[in-house]
Amino acid sequence: MRTPHEHHLHVRYAETDQMGVVYHANYLVYMEEGRTRMMAARGLPYHELERQGWALVVRKAELRYRAAARYGDEILVRTWVERVGGASIRFRYELERAGAGELLATGTTELACVDLGTEGRPPTMLPEELRARLGS
Amino acid sequence: MRTPHEHHLHVRYAETDQMGVVYHANYLVYMEEGRTRMMAARGLPYHELERQGWALVVRKAELRYRAAARYGDEILVRTWVERVGGASIRFRYELERAGAGELLATGTTELACVDLGTEGRPPTMLPEELRARLGS
Amino acid sequence: MRTPHEHHLHVRYAETDQMGVVYHANYLVYMEEGRTRMMAARGLPYHELERQGWALVVRKAELRYRAAARYGDEILVRTWVERVGGASIRFRYELERAGAGELLATGTTELACVDLGTEGRPPTMLPEELRARLGS
Amino acid sequence: MRTPHEHHLHVRYAETDQMGVVYHANYLVYMEEGRTRMMAARGLPYHELERQGWALVVRKAELRYRAAARYGDEILVRTWVERVGGASIRFRYELERAGAGELLATGTTELACVDLGTEGRPPTMLPEELRARLGS
Repeated sequence: MRTPHEHHLHVRYAETDQMGVVYHANYLVYMEEGRTRMMAARGLPYHELERQGWALVVRKAELRYRAAARYGDEILVRTWVERVGGASIRFRYELERAGAGELLATGTTELACVDLGTEGRPPTMLPEELRARLGS
Repeated sequence: MRTPHEHHLHVRYAETDQMGVVYHANYLVYMEEGRTRMMAARGLPYHELERQGWALVVRKAELRYRAAARYGDEILVRTWVERVGGASIRFRYELERAGAGELLATGTTELACVDLGTEGRPPTMLPEELRARLGS
Repeated sequence: MRTPHEHHLHVRYAETDQMGVVYHANYLVYMEEGRTRMMAARGLPYHELERQGWALVVRKAELRYRAAARYGDEILVRTWVERVGGASIRFRYELERAGAGELLATGTTELACVDLGTEGRPPTMLPEELRARLGS
Repeated sequence: MRTPHEHHLHVRYAETDQMGVVYHANYLVYMEEGRTRMMAARGLPYHELERQGWALVVRKAELRYRAAARYGDEILVRTWVERVGGASIRFRYELERAGAGELLATGTTELACVDLGTEGRPPTMLPEELRARLGS
């Protein structure tokens, strides 16, 4: 498997909750940051994909929370393309507290490709360019 | 001025921050809940307005925070139509802790009407039905 | 298994994204609404649990997205207690478009109990009252 | 007046709404990013201030929306300290589409200092270090 894409982000105050840690749903946002930055780094920004008439919609997500991220933390999001199917892609993620190297969370998301230009947005095969840029 | 529309909502855990109170940007969401519930109560749900080809976009917002809302609170959102102009509407809001009657925040938002069906979404006159339902 | 707890909510504009549907991370918020309303309905509101010195922290989450929720939709969140362990609880959820009866998403979350009053917030056994109220 | 602090950020997909633009409440989050990055740049990160026992709570906010930010945009947030009072600070912001130099929004927020270590979190004078680092 290829080396992962690495993206650094800073926890925002808005992302914390009254437990004093990052609210759990925000890890899905961090993971999305990971995969969209990866796509941009490989030459196909996600907004460009939508402009061309396709979208990637999340079909499945799995998360395991291991340690709490806190305000003031910098987080390193590692993203792998785990599997490129005919009409879907699975990404895998590891989030760690940057510097400390402490694992915060792991997860996967599976995204299906849909055709934005057709009524009902039916699932469709992955565009060739996407496959070329994300495939191994 | 007409009596305000009243909407009750419960603070969600997701809306708190590490200060142990509702994160300040969420009051704009609560105010939006107030005005869209008011529109629905007056027979023109906002999603119906968009379906007809218009949108209301926020141009100005002013908020004053007076006491902190907390998880577990029920909030009463009072909404008034403060002014109906040719191409914009101003709403006014008061949020209080339900039961306690304690004032949490006040604010106003001014929204302009735009035409979703025209490239660039130019400002447009308020549709007659909207004016009829929200005007005094 | 007991009958599920049922909670109805309305999609907020703030919860949509530019694909015109509910942003996927918000389903975790809806599921949290489901389980906290269930706790309140069984006599132990979650804020009361925190006041007593315990918190439930999400350790795992799994989601499957089946159809898109939209602005204007009312959503029915069904919540089950799937398993009560010594120090954790697993909840299961089904979200459907109310009225239509169309399944939108399913998922599970596993939450561990931690002791807020002890430095480092160590995992702890579920308080007896919580077990009594959520256990079958 | 000093030159403003400048911070660049990328719009996240999670921040858009179904109108295809950044949801209006998120501009408060962007402004907070502006002021907290400014504090960090001046040697007093906000999380350090809270660690020392103080918090800055938003008392007033005013926003004017001039053009819509979109997914894929990079935003330049300019932040000024507009006024340092005895117990409060007012910040002013300008957000523009980076590169294009197009003005997206302007706003101000007024924050009061509170004492986290005292029951009820009473307003308190600004700590000397904060005044020194943010004052002109």
